[in-house]
Amino acid sequence: MIKRIETGTRMSKVVIHNDVAYLCGQVGSGTTVTEQTKDCLDRVDALLEQIGSSREHMLQAIIWISDMDDFAEMNAVWDAWVPQGHAPARACGEAKLATERLKVEVIVTAAIPH
Amino acid sequence: MIKRIETGTRMSKVVIHNDVAYLCGQVGSGTTVTEQTKDCLDRVDALLEQIGSSREHMLQAIIWISDMDDFAEMNAVWDAWVPQGHAPARACGEAKLATERLKVEVIVTAAIPH
Amino acid sequence: MIKRIETGTRMSKVVIHNDVAYLCGQVGSGTTVTEQTKDCLDRVDALLEQIGSSREHMLQAIIWISDMDDFAEMNAVWDAWVPQGHAPARACGEAKLATERLKVEVIVTAAIPH
Repeated sequence: MIKRIETGTRMSKVVIHNDVAYLCGQVGSGTTVTEQTKDCLDRVDALLEQIGSSREHMLQAIIWISDMDDFAEMNAVWDAWVPQGHAPARACGEAKLATERLKVEVIVTAAIPH
Repeated sequence: MIKRIETGTRMSKVVIHNDVAYLCGQVGSGTTVTEQTKDCLDRVDALLEQIGSSREHMLQAIIWISDMDDFAEMNAVWDAWVPQGHAPARACGEAKLATERLKVEVIVTAAIPH
Repeated sequence: MIKRIETGTRMSKVVIHNDVAYLCGQVGSGTTVTEQTKDCLDRVDALLEQIGSSREHMLQAIIWISDMDDFAEMNAVWDAWVPQGHAPARACGEAKLATERLKVEVIVTAAIPH
């Protein structure tokens, strides 16, 4: 009934139930907001592909950025990445993340197509 | 399988899947916390009505306020708005929002009744 | 279609729909991060048990801590509590909580097994 991907002690990378996939918060490598956002969204793509979903099937994205001054820079990468006509519901707030170097974290919920 | 309402480049206002609606983070106009919370919840009402749901069908509400000192003022509006016997699961934390003037943002998940 | 547990004016402790349970943000008593996290997760256990679910059936956990310096201390309790092979998707960010004394809040979504 519940399927998990890459389950560790602390979390699973993805948990699937009733055709809905819950991804763990994704962050990215790199130093700039642009680099981190791109890498973060690459990881979202990879996880969604692994479970037979895709960025066209996102339902909700909650975005945390460590400094709201980075909002425009994050959005530039986000807007270019979101497939036209398939944007998820979204919210973005400021939150300090697990380590000082992290500037962006994205929590994605997506549907698994039949 | 997925239905979207008012889909833009960045986000959809609502995404529906399996009778569950994910609303994008709602904020409100006005200057005070009371004004913004009222307007924000009016927008939630309008979106829910548009998809055949209502505030009686909310499942979860995650609330961000930019200053936790506004907790009581936000709650006064919230408590009066929530329909008796139909309150959603809720969490509220402090997060700076997209622009300085924003004091309240609400992320709602709701069921679509048959 | 929607089942609610301990519904008050502001929120329900749990809302269930389509075999998915949305728990309201759980906090804990105590003064240290360890004490609060333990108590918080005890409350999650109690709510999940009440609805015929369990920590083995968690889908997603969003964790807010009021000070990211407490990350390791919170994680030590979390990691010991999560049942091996059943970890949920997880994200953790820093957010000030409803009162000054609160250091940890956990928002859990879980499946109800048939």
